[in-house]
Amino acid sequence: MKVEIWSDVVCPWCYIGKRRFEAALQRFPQADQIELDWKSFELDPGARSAAAGEAGDYLERVAAKFGRSRAETKQLLDSMTATAAAEGLEFHFEKALPANTFNAHQVIHLGLERGRQHEVTERLMKAYFTEGAAVSDPEVLVRLGAEAGLDADEVRASLADQRYAAAVRDDESEAAALGISGVPFFVIDRKYGVSGAQPADQLLGALRQAWVESHPLTFVGAGNGTDDAVCGPDGCAV
Amino acid sequence: MKVEIWSDVVCPWCYIGKRRFEAALQRFPQADQIELDWKSFELDPGARSAAAGEAGDYLERVAAKFGRSRAETKQLLDSMTATAAAEGLEFHFEKALPANTFNAHQVIHLGLERGRQHEVTERLMKAYFTEGAAVSDPEVLVRLGAEAGLDADEVRASLADQRYAAAVRDDESEAAALGISGVPFFVIDRKYGVSGAQPADQLLGALRQAWVESHPLTFVGAGNGTDDAVCGPDGCAV
Repeated sequence: MKVEIWSDVVCPWCYIGKRRFEAALQRFPQADQIELDWKSFELDPGARSAAAGEAGDYLERVAAKFGRSRAETKQLLDSMTATAAAEGLEFHFEKALPANTFNAHQVIHLGLERGRQHEVTERLMKAYFTEGAAVSDPEVLVRLGAEAGLDADEVRASLADQRYAAAVRDDESEAAALGISGVPFFVIDRKYGVSGAQPADQLLGALRQAWVESHPLTFVGAGNGTDDAVCGPDGCAV
Repeated sequence: MKVEIWSDVVCPWCYIGKRRFEAALQRFPQADQIELDWKSFELDPGARSAAAGEAGDYLERVAAKFGRSRAETKQLLDSMTATAAAEGLEFHFEKALPANTFNAHQVIHLGLERGRQHEVTERLMKAYFTEGAAVSDPEVLVRLGAEAGLDADEVRASLADQRYAAAVRDDESEAAALGISGVPFFVIDRKYGVSGAQPADQLLGALRQAWVESHPLTFVGAGNGTDDAVCGPDGCAV
């Protein structure tokens, strides 16, 4: 069974949704038969990046972007931080640096080719949300990619020639074709869609439903089992 | 999903379009679930064939046919050759032999029955555009068919009794019914039509659109997911 997850490195619900999905997988007996693919989605393709020191105040930035007061914005961020903490994540919005994620998504694509996609995705999200790393900076991405098991020179070369740019765009075109306008978005076997960081129970339910549909039980034995030596809420067949 | 491609063996845009379509398929995640069918379309059903030595000058022939000067014709052919080269194809118009393609299409139909249609189509186009082979000559077709995995005797016998003639005519009648007057022409699930050797991006977009339409996602989970624990271009729901 294949699960594709559209997400962005700088999307808080995506990191939270990642933990919830992992919790669902822990409880899913056929987890080892699931092929995962992290697909690119840039929340803000026109985002400008900034290094530490040039970024200014995160709270101010978010408040301005969404036209809310500082107090209201702080409350929203605190609430998101608490939700993340409940999933075992440490968010430090105050350290977060504005980042265009086009390069980061390319490194995730390199990760897919090298069998390290899950590790790369996790590393980049942690770098952004917990460590305040500049996840748009090529040299930072080289370091983070290497920490996630990639070859540093290959990360550098792939960013230099932008060899995964088309792959990122392809993911985004696919998202548009599927009607995906927000992330995280989980697609199971190209059949079921789950939008948002839904609770692990919900995600597990979706996995089960898709699994049963693609792996229906084959009835063996005398009958089809509907009325043969069986007891039900209305009694027992004899 | 089914993709039918009307084309002719002697149609340069068809061979170029074939490469572009193949490039699109490479990038289409569900490529293994696509059934391809190469359908017959004779650009010139009344074309006379000629062997090497009797053919005369290609440039002269094309210039005369389309009422253009030699210089202008040369420019057009050079431009087409360059476009083909960009797709990795080697065109040698100077070697091309005038060919009626009715027999060639019959061999492609035999290829369909024997599961070698893609190989046969590729082999015949390469023979015409790159090798200057006489693709109307039954014995040349026997050789090319065999090189594409068909049984030589069966190719010979099928041309002797013209057993696929009606199948070729059927394809052409269908093309007329669908309003197809030029090739290549791609038909997806008898629902979407793409005319011409469009860029791989365009062809990929058409495949995606058709796929999503025939395989819409079923939303599972709490809501319809429009505003629950999701981040979009306008911010994150909280």
